[in-house]
Amino acid sequence: MRNLKVFIAYDGSGYHGFQRQENAVTVQQMVEEAIGKLLKIPPPPINGCSRTDAGVHARRFCFNVFTNSKIPCEGFEKGMNSILPSDIAVLSCEEAPEEFNARYCTKEKEYVYLVSMQRDVFLRNFAYHCRYDINLERMKRAAGLFIGEHDFGAFCRAEGKKRVRSTVRRIYSLEVGERGGLIEIKVRGNGFLYNMVRIISGTLLYVGEGRMAPEDIAEALEKKDRTLAGITLPACGLYLNEVIY
Amino acid sequence: MRNLKVFIAYDGSGYHGFQRQENAVTVQQMVEEAIGKLLKIPPPPINGCSRTDAGVHARRFCFNVFTNSKIPCEGFEKGMNSILPSDIAVLSCEEAPEEFNARYCTKEKEYVYLVSMQRDVFLRNFAYHCRYDINLERMKRAAGLFIGEHDFGAFCRAEGKKRVRSTVRRIYSLEVGERGGLIEIKVRGNGFLYNMVRIISGTLLYVGEGRMAPEDIAEALEKKDRTLAGITLPACGLYLNEVIY
Repeated sequence: MRNLKVFIAYDGSGYHGFQRQENAVTVQQMVEEAIGKLLKIPPPPINGCSRTDAGVHARRFCFNVFTNSKIPCEGFEKGMNSILPSDIAVLSCEEAPEEFNARYCTKEKEYVYLVSMQRDVFLRNFAYHCRYDINLERMKRAAGLFIGEHDFGAFCRAEGKKRVRSTVRRIYSLEVGERGGLIEIKVRGNGFLYNMVRIISGTLLYVGEGRMAPEDIAEALEKKDRTLAGITLPACGLYLNEVIY
Repeated sequence: MRNLKVFIAYDGSGYHGFQRQENAVTVQQMVEEAIGKLLKIPPPPINGCSRTDAGVHARRFCFNVFTNSKIPCEGFEKGMNSILPSDIAVLSCEEAPEEFNARYCTKEKEYVYLVSMQRDVFLRNFAYHCRYDINLERMKRAAGLFIGEHDFGAFCRAEGKKRVRSTVRRIYSLEVGERGGLIEIKVRGNGFLYNMVRIISGTLLYVGEGRMAPEDIAEALEKKDRTLAGITLPACGLYLNEVIY
């Protein structure tokens, strides 16, 4: 059996997330059906590196799939891109060792959250539109408080806590930058809880707007209380940016 | 009566062009209905600076509308943006002299055509994906042949010729640039025929791919024969970029 390690990108606007669901169209379903068509087999199960929520995008998402097919990696890439809809693209395909699993072998993940300071018709599905003035320097300073190993219980949607054994995660870096009226929040860590990046981004934006103080972040982290953190920003601004193995 | 001069931007992906139609959703309809709602009157007719085809975008599109309302320009702008769907935005609103007409007073228009050299899931509605290698220098050199006053009969869709008295137009500038795998064709002129920018862009791309020679452009212009020009590129890559009065 060959084990193919495949990177894809997708515009999540039209999908109910990555993971297969009974009554909704997902990225996983589209990819599995495309593989089935390409290899002339029933759609095979694939292992995605992550669930992503409805409307969330991916610049580099990894999955692996086992196959008996002898199709060359380049042929897989080209063939998939001719079958997949235009909002999903295969970026690369390579042979992986049998033990490689796109979900369990993840070492680091990087997410980007985009905030637009203008009502931009071309970004309506690709960034969150913030209607308030923000202080970028305040956001940059507050970002440092998240770095390191913390219990992120306050930065996790309630349903998400049942899925995991621990809410402790390590954040390696969290950068807040700006160019052309677009604020980019880039965060890298060893794993993320349900809605964690969207709540961290919402909290940073509250700090930028002056609705929260940096000390409030420290308190939220310490008390692990979701109500002490900021809002969950919408899915449209979130991108899975990179997965490191 | 006040005459309001309004600039808007829109993502044309979801519309059958600007101009009102019987059985299709258009930008004009959405804007007129929003004005009606805002001013609590029946939707008033507006004069758009241009027809745009289904799927074509606008970064700056101008219309004017007559009204008895005393609403301040700033209130009009904010109110419209709270009513309009997220794919249409009012950029500015100002008082204009009674004789101003957004269509007939146009002096120059600028269009941009975007070509993506990669299969980019985030640009599928915003650029044409070219699957061939192209020679940018060849395109740049060929672009110069369009500048000046010419009979653009070969660069106009057949139905478009019936609408106009003459197919002579003046092009002031035509620039071909590239950044980050995206080719930008920017053209400015005193007026454009039906599909003219999309046919000029398709012709330049044929030159870039080596399917046509620059001399073929000269011949097409001289013979005014549509079959001697390149293909009409899809609407998704086209932007009305600016209107000058």
